[in-house]
Amino acid sequence: MLTTETYQKEFVEYLEKYVSFKEPQNLYEPIRYILRLGGKRLRPVLTLMTCDIFGLNYTKALDAALAIEVFHNFSLVHDDIMDDAPLRRAKETVHEKWNINTGILSGDAMLIMAYQMFENYDDTTFRKLAKLFSKTALEVCEGQQYDIDFETRTDVSIPEYLKMIEYKTAVLVAAAMQMGAIVADASLEEQNSIYEFGNLLGIAFQLQDDYLDAFGDPKTFGKQVGGDIIENKKTFLYLKALEFSEQKDKDELLQLFSTTPDDSSDKIDRVKQLFEISGAADATKREIKIYTHKAFAVLEVMPISEDKKQILQQFGASLITREV
Amino acid sequence: MLTTETYQKEFVEYLEKYVSFKEPQNLYEPIRYILRLGGKRLRPVLTLMTCDIFGLNYTKALDAALAIEVFHNFSLVHDDIMDDAPLRRAKETVHEKWNINTGILSGDAMLIMAYQMFENYDDTTFRKLAKLFSKTALEVCEGQQYDIDFETRTDVSIPEYLKMIEYKTAVLVAAAMQMGAIVADASLEEQNSIYEFGNLLGIAFQLQDDYLDAFGDPKTFGKQVGGDIIENKKTFLYLKALEFSEQKDKDELLQLFSTTPDDSSDKIDRVKQLFEISGAADATKREIKIYTHKAFAVLEVMPISEDKKQILQQFGASLITREV
Repeated sequence: MLTTETYQKEFVEYLEKYVSFKEPQNLYEPIRYILRLGGKRLRPVLTLMTCDIFGLNYTKALDAALAIEVFHNFSLVHDDIMDDAPLRRAKETVHEKWNINTGILSGDAMLIMAYQMFENYDDTTFRKLAKLFSKTALEVCEGQQYDIDFETRTDVSIPEYLKMIEYKTAVLVAAAMQMGAIVADASLEEQNSIYEFGNLLGIAFQLQDDYLDAFGDPKTFGKQVGGDIIENKKTFLYLKALEFSEQKDKDELLQLFSTTPDDSSDKIDRVKQLFEISGAADATKREIKIYTHKAFAVLEVMPISEDKKQILQQFGASLITREV
Repeated sequence: MLTTETYQKEFVEYLEKYVSFKEPQNLYEPIRYILRLGGKRLRPVLTLMTCDIFGLNYTKALDAALAIEVFHNFSLVHDDIMDDAPLRRAKETVHEKWNINTGILSGDAMLIMAYQMFENYDDTTFRKLAKLFSKTALEVCEGQQYDIDFETRTDVSIPEYLKMIEYKTAVLVAAAMQMGAIVADASLEEQNSIYEFGNLLGIAFQLQDDYLDAFGDPKTFGKQVGGDIIENKKTFLYLKALEFSEQKDKDELLQLFSTTPDDSSDKIDRVKQLFEISGAADATKREIKIYTHKAFAVLEVMPISEDKKQILQQFGASLITREV
């Protein structure tokens, strides 16, 4: 077993070989650009790590890991168009640097290229990987649609919100891990367990993201603190605050989330206060712990050695306690 | 062997069962809408027909045919966004009826759903179909990128143009036929021959489309006659006219293609004149015949019965002599 940093390094080296020059340049240059923007490479690292955990050398899972990362970046390119986002990892988004049509078409090509990565496996593995991939990719699209739908809905429930982040974020983390298990030819039971572990961890991860977006340290948090509040996003914090607040505070929160002031600092401060006094901030921290512990409980009964469990547990804990 | 109309009818019935209700509605409703808009269903019919020709009942190829049609409609939805097209088959395009984000996301989902159709085949067939599909889909993206690149280039050569229409249109016709052959477990040699036949026919089909866009009968041609001229598209007609014209006419054509008048009827009339007097119109008709005969030559040496050859030849001829 390698360290997270080594998996990361090995993956990025493999990725570099992949993003070589191809024609037409205007289609493939944006793909090289987004794939080289960096990031934590969380999902592909999980694929490699899981392959090792189930007893096969991680290098065999490099193509599956690449498929996951190429798909993830496809979804970033298309989501950034839909969200009209100017920046991604502090650099221009693809549709900003080029244009919307380039973003659409390069994204489409990436989705197809992700499937092609599975062609390096035998027939049976190819089918298993591609099938899981299609199911997951479609769920990610559904999650994105729910996210869009929620923008204009005022009656989003907590279970609906959790389903949305499960589809939009968690299932890809889960599938990344299951693919490592598939490549290592793990049993179906093992595959399902690791998927469930990844899914629960993925939900905790996204809830943590919601929490950090409001309460993260501006010095260490990669994105703008308060971004979700500025955009009036109905996050777990917001929904819980509405649920817990008395009528007066509830009305104020609803009112604040119906405005987009030029200078949002007062709004951010007040919303964060309401998140805290309502108990929503604490409830979110509790929910993150609940999902993390659920994930660890799945791990507990898995038929893998204690040291391997510990590796996964440490990785899970590092995701949840992160401040970036 | 059935008639084209019966294949069409059988395919549309199968499609109807497929487009049943799914959540989230805002993702799947646009998919139902575009898939039900109709059209000639040319590509899926070719898949079914080819399966029958290689000796397996066409019903076995319905899922592959559906994949091809869902992919084709995905590409229409995304292309219509890129071209800012208001109408498709005389109805509103998806991004017009809903919005651009819906068009992007529903298109993405369709691309994934196309792959899922192959899951109904065994491991080996699944792999063959998905691999051919990925290769083809990526070529279609590359073709679309070349098409976009050509808009701002003034030095597009005839071979470059032919490569562009091959990628953008012909390879999907070719793959549609090869998929029928794959499902029927035809030999690799047979697969390659039918692919080549479809590819050559697809190029002839697109050149015919270019020709009809200028010289089609407004009463029978489905789209606006002169549409390519209005949009200053560098079609085969245009490139050949530039090649054949003397300097004076060449300058006039270049000048006409640098304008977009509100009332384009004079421009269309004059451009069509230049296409005719330069000999470009005749050259296009000749080129269509050349590609059709190349396709028939491939057919000639194929190890299938004469009556089957005749079916394919008739279908090919009907595509080229069509006026719609």
